[in-house]
Amino acid sequence: MKELNHCLKNIKGGICAPKGYLAGTAHANLGGKKTYQKNIAFIASESKYPSHAAAVFTKNLFFAPPIAVTKKHLIEQKGAIQGIIINSRNANACTGDQGIKDAEEMCTAAGRALGIPGEKLAVASTGVIGVPLLMGPLLEGISDAASNLTSNGSHNAALAIMTTDTFPKETALSYSFNELITIGGIAKGSGMVHPNMATILGILTTDACIENQALQQALRKGIDRTFNMISVDGDTSTNDMVIIFSNGAAGNPCIQAGTFEFEIFSLILEDILRTLAKSIASDGEGATKFIEVNVRGASNDEEARVAAKAVSSSLLVKTALFGCDANWGRIACALGYSGSKFNPEEVSIYLKDLLLMHRGCSVPFDEDIALKILLEKEVIINIILGTGPGNATAWGCDLSYDYVKINGSYRS
Amino acid sequence: MKELNHCLKNIKGGICAPKGYLAGTAHANLGGKKTYQKNIAFIASESKYPSHAAAVFTKNLFFAPPIAVTKKHLIEQKGAIQGIIINSRNANACTGDQGIKDAEEMCTAAGRALGIPGEKLAVASTGVIGVPLLMGPLLEGISDAASNLTSNGSHNAALAIMTTDTFPKETALSYSFNELITIGGIAKGSGMVHPNMATILGILTTDACIENQALQQALRKGIDRTFNMISVDGDTSTNDMVIIFSNGAAGNPCIQAGTFEFEIFSLILEDILRTLAKSIASDGEGATKFIEVNVRGASNDEEARVAAKAVSSSLLVKTALFGCDANWGRIACALGYSGSKFNPEEVSIYLKDLLLMHRGCSVPFDEDIALKILLEKEVIINIILGTGPGNATAWGCDLSYDYVKINGSYRS
Repeated sequence: MKELNHCLKNIKGGICAPKGYLAGTAHANLGGKKTYQKNIAFIASESKYPSHAAAVFTKNLFFAPPIAVTKKHLIEQKGAIQGIIINSRNANACTGDQGIKDAEEMCTAAGRALGIPGEKLAVASTGVIGVPLLMGPLLEGISDAASNLTSNGSHNAALAIMTTDTFPKETALSYSFNELITIGGIAKGSGMVHPNMATILGILTTDACIENQALQQALRKGIDRTFNMISVDGDTSTNDMVIIFSNGAAGNPCIQAGTFEFEIFSLILEDILRTLAKSIASDGEGATKFIEVNVRGASNDEEARVAAKAVSSSLLVKTALFGCDANWGRIACALGYSGSKFNPEEVSIYLKDLLLMHRGCSVPFDEDIALKILLEKEVIINIILGTGPGNATAWGCDLSYDYVKINGSYRS
Repeated sequence: MKELNHCLKNIKGGICAPKGYLAGTAHANLGGKKTYQKNIAFIASESKYPSHAAAVFTKNLFFAPPIAVTKKHLIEQKGAIQGIIINSRNANACTGDQGIKDAEEMCTAAGRALGIPGEKLAVASTGVIGVPLLMGPLLEGISDAASNLTSNGSHNAALAIMTTDTFPKETALSYSFNELITIGGIAKGSGMVHPNMATILGILTTDACIENQALQQALRKGIDRTFNMISVDGDTSTNDMVIIFSNGAAGNPCIQAGTFEFEIFSLILEDILRTLAKSIASDGEGATKFIEVNVRGASNDEEARVAAKAVSSSLLVKTALFGCDANWGRIACALGYSGSKFNPEEVSIYLKDLLLMHRGCSVPFDEDIALKILLEKEVIINIILGTGPGNATAWGCDLSYDYVKINGSYRS
C-alpha cells in the first residue's frame, strides 16, 4: 500500500465514515445470562442514497435462516439492498421454517422503520445455535435501534455485534481520486474462526459508486487473501457473512471492473478486510499472542496458502507458542501434512529472523534469542518452501487454557 | 464379532502372546529430563521362525529417517523382516543424512545381536523432532535390550515406547481354526493423533502363516476403519507406523487373500487394531472423556467417515463435552462444514439415546438427562445423516486445560 500512501488516510468513524450511512443500536432481552449489553445493530444507507450490496457467505451446509433470507433478498433485489439488521446472543440457526419466518420478520420490522419493504434489507444473527428467537423483545429492540439511527453510531454497532469478542473491531480508510472516497468496516469474531468464513460477521460500507459485479469481484478477491487466511480453531460456522454496501454518495464516476480505479478500490478494500481479519485473529478466544505465518517460494500462491494455513491452524504449534517453546519440529510437521507440494530438503524455517531449520535439517540456534522473540505479543514465523513464485500470509493466535474455559461453558 | 465369539479369546501376553516372539527393553540416557523410564524396545521373532512384515506409514512429507529406512528394508527384503528396534524420547526427524545413518546403525546393532544383517530389521523412533540421536547411549541401550529378550517382555515393551501416554496399550486375541492362531499388539500415541497415521506406533505380531500381500491388504483395510478414525488434535506426525509381523509358528495352512480364513483373520486383526486405536483416543493428552461418534444413513461409508471425523475432531465439540454442555449446534455445525454431502433437513442428532436435533431442527430435551449422559466417562454421539447405506464410527476425546499444559512445554 506504500505507493498509495500520499492519497490514503486512516480515519475514524468506522462504517459511518463513508457519507450517507447511519447506525443504531439497542439492547433486547433475548434470554440466557442477564446482561444489558447492546445486542441489536441496525445499519442503513440514508434514503436519499439508494445503495446496493455484495456479500460472501459461510459454506457450512447448515447455513442459518438469516443467511438464506439475505441470499434470497440479494438475488431478488438484484443487489439493491439498503441496510442490514443484526442481532447477537442467538444465531437463529437450526431453527427450521420458524427461523426463516423470524428472519423475514426482522427484515420487515427494520424495513417498516425506513419506509421500505423488508426485501430491501439484509439480516444477520450470531450466538447460540438451535434456540428459537424471542421475537417479542427482538422486535422491540429493532424499533429502539431504528429510533436512534445516527451518523456516529459505528462504534456502538461494533459493540452490539460482539459475542465472545473482547474488543470491537472497527476501521476506515479514505482515498482521494478526484473525489474523496471512503470505505469503513466493523466485524465480530473470535471463536469458531477458520478459513472459509467462520463465525464472522463483517459489515462494510463505501460511499464510492462502484458497479455491483465489480464490487462482488473486489470483495471475493479480498476475502480470499484476508478473512479466509485467519484461523482460531478450525470450526466454520453456520452464520458467517461479510457484506459491503455501496451508495455512491461520494459522487465519483461509477467504478467499473478492470479499470485503474477498480484496482485502487480493490487494494483499499483488501486493506480494510485485512485490518478487520487480523483484529479477529488477535482476539482469538483466550489468545495471549497473535501469530503471523509468512510462506515464500511455493510453486504458486495456492500451495503457499495451504501451507501457511496448516501452520497457523496446528494445535501443536499454537500450544507451543503459548508455552514460548521454539518447537520448530511442529512447524515442519504441519507443513508436511498440509497437502502443499514441496521438497522437504528445500524448506527453511525462521522465527522472525532466527533460523531454526535449514533446508530440511535442524541447525543450532540461540534458545535465549528464541525465547525473547516468543515472549513478544506478536510472533512471526517465516517459511521458505523452495524457489517458486508463490507467497501467502496466514494469521492466527495461540491456544491457551482460557480457550478451553470459554468454550467449555458457552451456553450456560 | 459376535458370531466368532465361541472360537475367539481375549488373552494376555500382548505381542508375545503369539508363539515365537521375544521382546527386550532397556533405559538409555537420550538427553532431556533425567528419567529412568525404559525407552528402548526390541521385538523379534525367534530365529527358528523366520518372519515377514507388512506396514503402513505416515503421509507427512517430512517423514522421519526411521520411516525411510524401514520402507527401504521392507522393499529390499521383499517383506522378510525379523524384528523391530524402537526408541522413545527422540523422533530422529528432520535430522537429514545423519538421521538416516543413525537409523541404519540402530538396525545394524540390533541385527548383530540376532546374528542377522541390519537390513532384516525395521526401526522406529518417537519423541522430540530435530535433535540428533545420542548414538553412544542408544547403542548401549540396544545391546542391553537384546540381552534381555524374553517371551514375556510385551508389557515392558508397551511401557518403553510411551511418550506422553499415561498408560501402556496392549492386547491379544486367539482364534481356533484347526490350529490355534494368535494376534497380539502394543501401541503408543496420545498427542499429535489424527487420521492418516499421527504420532502413533503400533507393533503387531501373529503366529499365523499368512501370505504377505494378504497381510498387507488386511492391515490396510483394518487401519482405515480403526487407527484412521481416531483424532486427538488434528496433527499428523512425521514418525507414524503400524507394522505387523507374521512368523507361521502356529503351523496353519498359509492363509491366502479372498478365502474364508482370510476374512476371519482380517476381522480379528481389525478387532485388535480397534482396541489399540480406542485406547489411544481415550488417552488423548489431557482428556477427561472418551468420545464415540456413530454416523448412520450416509450415502456411502466414505461420506459417513468424513462426517464422523469432523465431529470427533471439532475443537468446539470437544470443549463443549469437556464442559458437559449439550451444545448440539456445534455437532450440526461440524457436520455442515465436514465436506460430507447430505440434506440438512434429514439430519438427526442423539446424545446416546436422547434426541437433540430432529431432521434439521432443534427439539426440546431434558437438560438433566443430557447432563447425566455427559458426566459419564464415555460419551456416545449418534447421528442419522439420511436414509443411505453408509455407516462409520470415529473416536476421540475432549479438550481440557491439561492438553494445553502438556503441549505448551513438551520440549522442556
